[in-house]
Amino acid sequence: MEKVTVLGAGSWGTALAMVLANNEHDCLLWSHREDQATEITTNHTNKKYLPETILPTNLKATSDFQQAIQHANVIVIAVPTKAIREVCQNMLPFLAEKKLFVHVSKGIEPDSLKRISEMIAEELSEDVTEAIVVLSGPSHAEEVVLKHPTTITVASENMVAAEKVQDLFMNKSFRVYTNDDVIGVEIGAALKNVIALAAGIVDGLGYGDNAKAALITRGLAEISRLGISLGAQPYTFSGLTGMGDLIVTCTSVHSRNWRAGNMLGKGATLNTVLEEMGMVVEGVRTTKAAYQLATKQQVDMPITKALYSVLFEQVNPKEAVDILMHRTKKHELEDYKTF
Amino acid sequence: MEKVTVLGAGSWGTALAMVLANNEHDCLLWSHREDQATEITTNHTNKKYLPETILPTNLKATSDFQQAIQHANVIVIAVPTKAIREVCQNMLPFLAEKKLFVHVSKGIEPDSLKRISEMIAEELSEDVTEAIVVLSGPSHAEEVVLKHPTTITVASENMVAAEKVQDLFMNKSFRVYTNDDVIGVEIGAALKNVIALAAGIVDGLGYGDNAKAALITRGLAEISRLGISLGAQPYTFSGLTGMGDLIVTCTSVHSRNWRAGNMLGKGATLNTVLEEMGMVVEGVRTTKAAYQLATKQQVDMPITKALYSVLFEQVNPKEAVDILMHRTKKHELEDYKTF
Repeated sequence: MEKVTVLGAGSWGTALAMVLANNEHDCLLWSHREDQATEITTNHTNKKYLPETILPTNLKATSDFQQAIQHANVIVIAVPTKAIREVCQNMLPFLAEKKLFVHVSKGIEPDSLKRISEMIAEELSEDVTEAIVVLSGPSHAEEVVLKHPTTITVASENMVAAEKVQDLFMNKSFRVYTNDDVIGVEIGAALKNVIALAAGIVDGLGYGDNAKAALITRGLAEISRLGISLGAQPYTFSGLTGMGDLIVTCTSVHSRNWRAGNMLGKGATLNTVLEEMGMVVEGVRTTKAAYQLATKQQVDMPITKALYSVLFEQVNPKEAVDILMHRTKKHELEDYKTF
Repeated sequence: MEKVTVLGAGSWGTALAMVLANNEHDCLLWSHREDQATEITTNHTNKKYLPETILPTNLKATSDFQQAIQHANVIVIAVPTKAIREVCQNMLPFLAEKKLFVHVSKGIEPDSLKRISEMIAEELSEDVTEAIVVLSGPSHAEEVVLKHPTTITVASENMVAAEKVQDLFMNKSFRVYTNDDVIGVEIGAALKNVIALAAGIVDGLGYGDNAKAALITRGLAEISRLGISLGAQPYTFSGLTGMGDLIVTCTSVHSRNWRAGNMLGKGATLNTVLEEMGMVVEGVRTTKAAYQLATKQQVDMPITKALYSVLFEQVNPKEAVDILMHRTKKHELEDYKTF
């Protein structure tokens, strides 16, 4: 039995805390809202994010940040990407010794163009960091809490740490694989939300499964190009955190980014979509970051560019998708020849 | 304007003939049933396969096989895999000069383990064959006839022929790319039906999107391993005929193979499924061929083997999927290290 703290009681943080509690670890879930922490500990529910789930009775929550950090040597960071730096800064006063940090967030920071593990490493010194591990893969929280079979990847430069995290989470319905390609896993995780937004637009326009399959395929190609330019291993993009997560995000009704894109495709404005969703749509910020990263790395990313023009330059979605579909490339592997 | 004949008036053959007729080619569609040929020419419908579609008035059909073959120098073969050899043999008496053959079928012949283009090459001598081109990609006929954006690939060892076929089919909503990797395109096209059957079973068992995404990802990995062992290029499997077609087949309600698997997952027997479908389910025959091919090539194909055990060895689908999900592999890229 290990002591583990999960920071962030959204749907994914709560589902992961449930996996850890079911594995009989001493898991504490931190919420910034006291009423939510009380609800989780007392009623064993988190109605806002997982309305139909009964949580394990051994899962406790707290809104006391100091208590949460001091509870465990393994800290799972499950907050939105834009809160990562702040959460790390808030931890610093309470980090007396080295801890193992696991992050499960998906995104790239606009302007700095840092991946999540880079942001964490910048905020926390090596003196307090045993290792940083990213956990990612095709895994809707709503299915994990139902114990539907799920496979995910944990990646780290420190494989001993990755294997430790693997052991913490692994059980019969939650299969965990290790990988040493942190860059590939983080880039795949972040960029899939961009393609999911675009896939939602294609569906919102009523263009059908053929068009969406083409978009997903070309989307993975441009994610791979970007990742490889940053030092990722090509095969990571064919794995669970690349192709696997991309498929589930682009084809599942659970995906927020797909839903947001779908509303855009049906004619809603970005502001309306963001207001109606009421949840973070990581793909919007990531599109900006990915667009900047593509420019910096001089990598051709036509889908990302088209989506950027829709989100930030008021280009009509139908016009953007039609331009994308009618590109003049004639040989299928032209894309890949630039690898 | 070119003269083209399409052999086989199923949904895909009819949709392709419609693309050619809309491109203003002189397209003749052959059906083995005289009443169907009359319906297509006279009523401009093919109610059995595309019940809601009005066909172009310039699309003519015939049940006269000799007339069909002699009409054109480009013959599109759109018959089920198991009819390929017979159709080629029947053509022989009417082949006075070389013709260009395009096939759009998806499968591998059990026992001989031949791909479709190999079967065609065996039946038709080089004297009458200008080239053999395979046309494949994520493309449900039901969407093509609605002119929804669709992208597909034509592959041939003869790139001049591939480009000629590209020009015949290309239009604003039907985008055609060329590729020279015939082995990769044919293996991807055939094997995706195996994974679609398995994906249908996973859905029929109610295992959810996470499990299905994992299955599709691992499925493409095993298809790639098999293809590469046969001489295919790895990147083809990341393209439209690999990943693209696999996604559309595993996630679309139009897919027969997925529907058949779904019924199996819900407890139906194979015989019941085949009777109820009333259409060819290529994936069943291909599973047998793929299983034989994996054994011959000594390639690890756990999903294919699990499906084989369900279809031909009376293993319970739930048991087979559970074994697959609980394999002991721990590092994600173990699969790829064998490339």
